[in-house]
Amino acid sequence: MPEYAIGLDLGGTNLRAAAISRDGKMLDHVAGSSRLSGGSDALVNDMAAAIETLRDRQGRDGLSGIGVAVPGFILLQEGIVKNSNNIPGLEDYPLRDNLEQRLGAKVIIENDANAAALGEKWMGAGRDVDDLILLTLGTGVGGGIICQGKLLHGTLGMAGEFGHITVVPNGNPCGCGNHGCLEKHASATAITAMAKLMGLGDNVTSEEVYNMAMKGNPRAHEIFVSMGRYLGIALATIINAFNFPLYLLGGGVLGAWNLFAPPMIDEIKQRSFTFRATNTRVEKAGLGSQSGLYGAAFLPWNKTDN
Amino acid sequence: MPEYAIGLDLGGTNLRAAAISRDGKMLDHVAGSSRLSGGSDALVNDMAAAIETLRDRQGRDGLSGIGVAVPGFILLQEGIVKNSNNIPGLEDYPLRDNLEQRLGAKVIIENDANAAALGEKWMGAGRDVDDLILLTLGTGVGGGIICQGKLLHGTLGMAGEFGHITVVPNGNPCGCGNHGCLEKHASATAITAMAKLMGLGDNVTSEEVYNMAMKGNPRAHEIFVSMGRYLGIALATIINAFNFPLYLLGGGVLGAWNLFAPPMIDEIKQRSFTFRATNTRVEKAGLGSQSGLYGAAFLPWNKTDN
Repeated sequence: MPEYAIGLDLGGTNLRAAAISRDGKMLDHVAGSSRLSGGSDALVNDMAAAIETLRDRQGRDGLSGIGVAVPGFILLQEGIVKNSNNIPGLEDYPLRDNLEQRLGAKVIIENDANAAALGEKWMGAGRDVDDLILLTLGTGVGGGIICQGKLLHGTLGMAGEFGHITVVPNGNPCGCGNHGCLEKHASATAITAMAKLMGLGDNVTSEEVYNMAMKGNPRAHEIFVSMGRYLGIALATIINAFNFPLYLLGGGVLGAWNLFAPPMIDEIKQRSFTFRATNTRVEKAGLGSQSGLYGAAFLPWNKTDN
Repeated sequence: MPEYAIGLDLGGTNLRAAAISRDGKMLDHVAGSSRLSGGSDALVNDMAAAIETLRDRQGRDGLSGIGVAVPGFILLQEGIVKNSNNIPGLEDYPLRDNLEQRLGAKVIIENDANAAALGEKWMGAGRDVDDLILLTLGTGVGGGIICQGKLLHGTLGMAGEFGHITVVPNGNPCGCGNHGCLEKHASATAITAMAKLMGLGDNVTSEEVYNMAMKGNPRAHEIFVSMGRYLGIALATIINAFNFPLYLLGGGVLGAWNLFAPPMIDEIKQRSFTFRATNTRVEKAGLGSQSGLYGAAFLPWNKTDN
């Protein structure tokens, strides 16, 4: 029986879990939808059931541990989800203890973007570096920082909140209290809001805006140029601050890379001497939608100082 | 004879060196002006002479090592000053090897803002934390990052270039190729440029603008409000990225703290949920103009991974 860990990635839409071996082979997986209407207890039941299914099928002997990735701000020491924009009912919720009680086993929980960064470092596009930053472009923008091989958490686990760095001082208002946050100008939500402003439809999805752009609609195209420029402003700032060798982009909006990446790179080149003077790579994440799943599974093996 | 190290801080105006004991007591110091007109060789002669004076007076027995802080971008492994805006003639200059040859001893060179951050961690306002960021507000804006007790250098030692993060996308042009760099909106140079724009004089110094503001000149006052707001935008971004417990401000412009700090803190509060939700301190550096000198002396004792 090979040594393995179970990772679970809880998203606003999907709940996925996998058994992954120490050398990164996915041995088994289960997937379902995140049943949000039933409240937090129903959600924890579903999470525990997915993990139990994998544990029963793979056996307890080789199981190194269980990791869970959750969108939102996690109090790491307490194992509490402080708040989660995407998962209602998980505010101030003792997720770790409740899962551990259900499973009779130790569980490690982590922010989903942090887990995704860890997954990319372990088995994705970041395998060859010790320092990387991952931005996840989805409904919002998340971030994870790997510094000298380890997650950089900051004082309370809130490091890497790149979705809320200011890219335009008087830009769109954000629920966080700021104006011009990156995620209000470069995310799936920002794309659909810009589509509304551009008269492309009140309820179009970001995929539909992408398809319009690919069919030659200049307004739809301009939306991705705008997104790319603001991403470039943010990335130039991040590159100037960290001077890391690798910056990865992941998340659902990554499919529009061909549209937003050229203006993004133009902006980075103009705004970062460090980028121009060094061999700095800005690339797609390597594990697609599975970065967080791999990262969650890696949590039991992760050496961390904080 | 107590264990001690010699630190030298080379500025655009002053050259200072000190012998400092392992427990942070300044045993001896020498100071002079930076003789820039003589070229790099004359400058290295002056630097070596200052160090030799201290070594002769304190004796070689207890000397742990020699550290030198230089403004500019340093290739750490090679000991080369790649470029320096403030010290002409130090472009691509092998400062470490030339000093070592003159002194017959090992020398460690470091960027001045990095050294200042290290000095603050060792004996200044950052003694009680493992993670801090220092911004130096002078002719330009420099930055140093202490992460888990050690300097964060990035790939090539260029981490912490906070002077060149974008605070307003279409702001003042910068020699680095960007527009709206922090140091073009919040530095001694920015203060004098704004004074010119406000009709306060073509050649006033930042100190003179400060004095005008303190005497009630509303235009001069507005300059420091503007500076504070842009510093706040940058600090909110840095706080959201790092979630460290402590951010320090140092450098010559710190004297205007009472004018720029209130709008700076207002801006940080508005733009950083992390700042509002955590006990994050933004404070004056503790060692005044000696942060870099202490940090330079600490370099021989500094444990670093990169």
